[in-house]
Amino acid sequence: MSNTSNHVLNFGAGPAKIPESVLKKAQKEFLDINGTGMSVMELSHRSKPFGAILQKTKDNLAKLMDIPSDYSILFMQGGATTQFAAIFLNLVAKKQDELIKLGKEKEEIVVDYFVTGAWSNKAVQEAERLAPAVQSNPIRVNRVIDVKQKYGKFGTIPPPSEWNLTDPTKHHVAYVYYCDNETIHGVEFPFVPKVNETVPLVADVSSNFLSRPIHVPKYAVVYGGAQKNLGPAGVTIVVVRNDMLVDVNVGPVRPLMLDFKTAADNNSMYNTPPTFAIYMVGLTLEWLIEEKGGLKGIEQANNSKARKLYELIDQSKLYKSPVDPHCRSHMNVVFRLPTEDLEKEFLAGAEKLHMHQLKGHRSVGGIRASIYNAMPEDDVDRLIEYMIEFEKKHSP
Amino acid sequence: MSNTSNHVLNFGAGPAKIPESVLKKAQKEFLDINGTGMSVMELSHRSKPFGAILQKTKDNLAKLMDIPSDYSILFMQGGATTQFAAIFLNLVAKKQDELIKLGKEKEEIVVDYFVTGAWSNKAVQEAERLAPAVQSNPIRVNRVIDVKQKYGKFGTIPPPSEWNLTDPTKHHVAYVYYCDNETIHGVEFPFVPKVNETVPLVADVSSNFLSRPIHVPKYAVVYGGAQKNLGPAGVTIVVVRNDMLVDVNVGPVRPLMLDFKTAADNNSMYNTPPTFAIYMVGLTLEWLIEEKGGLKGIEQANNSKARKLYELIDQSKLYKSPVDPHCRSHMNVVFRLPTEDLEKEFLAGAEKLHMHQLKGHRSVGGIRASIYNAMPEDDVDRLIEYMIEFEKKHSP
Repeated sequence: MSNTSNHVLNFGAGPAKIPESVLKKAQKEFLDINGTGMSVMELSHRSKPFGAILQKTKDNLAKLMDIPSDYSILFMQGGATTQFAAIFLNLVAKKQDELIKLGKEKEEIVVDYFVTGAWSNKAVQEAERLAPAVQSNPIRVNRVIDVKQKYGKFGTIPPPSEWNLTDPTKHHVAYVYYCDNETIHGVEFPFVPKVNETVPLVADVSSNFLSRPIHVPKYAVVYGGAQKNLGPAGVTIVVVRNDMLVDVNVGPVRPLMLDFKTAADNNSMYNTPPTFAIYMVGLTLEWLIEEKGGLKGIEQANNSKARKLYELIDQSKLYKSPVDPHCRSHMNVVFRLPTEDLEKEFLAGAEKLHMHQLKGHRSVGGIRASIYNAMPEDDVDRLIEYMIEFEKKHSP
Repeated sequence: MSNTSNHVLNFGAGPAKIPESVLKKAQKEFLDINGTGMSVMELSHRSKPFGAILQKTKDNLAKLMDIPSDYSILFMQGGATTQFAAIFLNLVAKKQDELIKLGKEKEEIVVDYFVTGAWSNKAVQEAERLAPAVQSNPIRVNRVIDVKQKYGKFGTIPPPSEWNLTDPTKHHVAYVYYCDNETIHGVEFPFVPKVNETVPLVADVSSNFLSRPIHVPKYAVVYGGAQKNLGPAGVTIVVVRNDMLVDVNVGPVRPLMLDFKTAADNNSMYNTPPTFAIYMVGLTLEWLIEEKGGLKGIEQANNSKARKLYELIDQSKLYKSPVDPHCRSHMNVVFRLPTEDLEKEFLAGAEKLHMHQLKGHRSVGGIRASIYNAMPEDDVDRLIEYMIEFEKKHSP
């Protein structure tokens, strides 16, 4: 096996590979978008040409995800980490709004978190940090399950029998939060956690956004940063059910730019949005629709790529998955070799074949092959060839 | 006069014109940055190639602005509007940190705002909205001057005799805030407001960033969104003196992503920064250094462009500047015609000559020619030709 071409295989976890046809289109019209004689970056966000781009992007997202009309699509900034705060502040505000109207502004509000990896762990920690500052209702942050606390490490999604969901008939539950795909630990929910239908469900889908169909009506909020499956870093897409939107002056005092209703009321243009990033998301959505057969098409492709890799890992004596089979990520395939030295050798050999960004996150080590929507199956096949060859040389 | 070429003259206030050579360089390397075989958008923010881009961008900014070593350069998201909250939260935290150590956690803290246009007005309003939620020290938001309240409209910078600066020997002043250039009203400070040297001075320079040399040591914080003079929308540059950085758990509870110390400690990579926007800023800085003679060179060019326009306006019987001569913006030249109908006709005629985005902000009307760094003097000359010709046809 050899890679004599300059073709680079980008297994980065994000910012990640962008479809080549998307990059080429953006390159072609980089200095002149739609005959304006200007770069898309030079257009006022309030101009007609940019307005058309924004609208088309929203329309295509709504079409792809089958988003009902009582939802708003927001383009925000600051990544998922900013949303950790925004989700808490906005959804607690919503619950406070309800309770104030009932004269229950002193009663406890609970927020429920599934902690299944590094990102949901950061999300719950942000809620815990912000909770004591909330005025009137006291806030309790509840971990429905904390896999690391319970099992010593992340790597599984325990069954419902182990969940400690707060009972909404006995408590005021503002929301239940989970991270659908844990990018660092390679753990993906194989199902939508079943919660009481009166409780708003929130999902961070940053690293598996648009990788497969989801049923939006199950959610109060679905959100994700763009830099894995949707485009460049710098824009976060928030799909929020309109009944979650409350006036910025109700509930926890929050920066205007983190307020969902302000963003919704201003069509994501309370101030200048990240126009170029939104444009790139738009191109990526068109690619998904026109070249990949939408979410059903891309799901099939993603399943096929992931299946091949996990089959190899499970048959191997060298590679080992640290994740339980039922909840292995289709986007971030993490695996270990017997020693760190072998892992270094594996990575060095991969680099020589132009397979880049395969190193596991610095907090966990090991190998991580991120195989997002834009990753062609051919590139996964090349990685598999290399893995087989490497194992032959190093069989334990 | 005629414009038969396809050359477009972009007088937009932001997102605004980007130097053509910057766009062309970015276009050329759009699919392969520095021989990586990847787009800059596809690089991990923690990769060596992106690290080099980030470092060079910081180095060039430090060089251009002569930023002392006890300052941090932060790349944040959410535009100036997010900074309206961040400035307040971080600098109040700093003052609280001082006062707690002195056992003065119950004493009042004052924040001073110059209100000289729409943006500083929004900034002070955000401070007023956030202030009541601050725990321990009560916060008073003081308007040093509110030009609209005092004179019925924005359009001047009153002399120091009219300022109501809080006396830092009698009060705990967290900071003094001003907006150096008011994009909408076309008002620019012709000087740095003189404040007691013990009081942190904060300037929003979003729309005149790097348009002329400034003396950074006068400031505790200088910040601006990139989308006028520095690149595309989606990144905000914050230059902050390190003694302003306090632990995120001290002072007002604030979202982690709005915390200056978190950003500084993590080299703007607590989470994924807007890598492409940072790269574009980097290219723009190189252009400033290599093609425009740095800040002294660009200042000269900017002065020349603005002087021509204001001379024409002052000599004209048709055009009228609503801004006092001593504080007219070098970046956003606003003017009025006798009637709104004539303004419409002026704009329509300009469009025909490919002079775009000349319409004044929807909140004030009129005409606004934004002539940022990237605007060539030739384009300003063309606008002037058109203005002269238009006046001939419509002399009152």
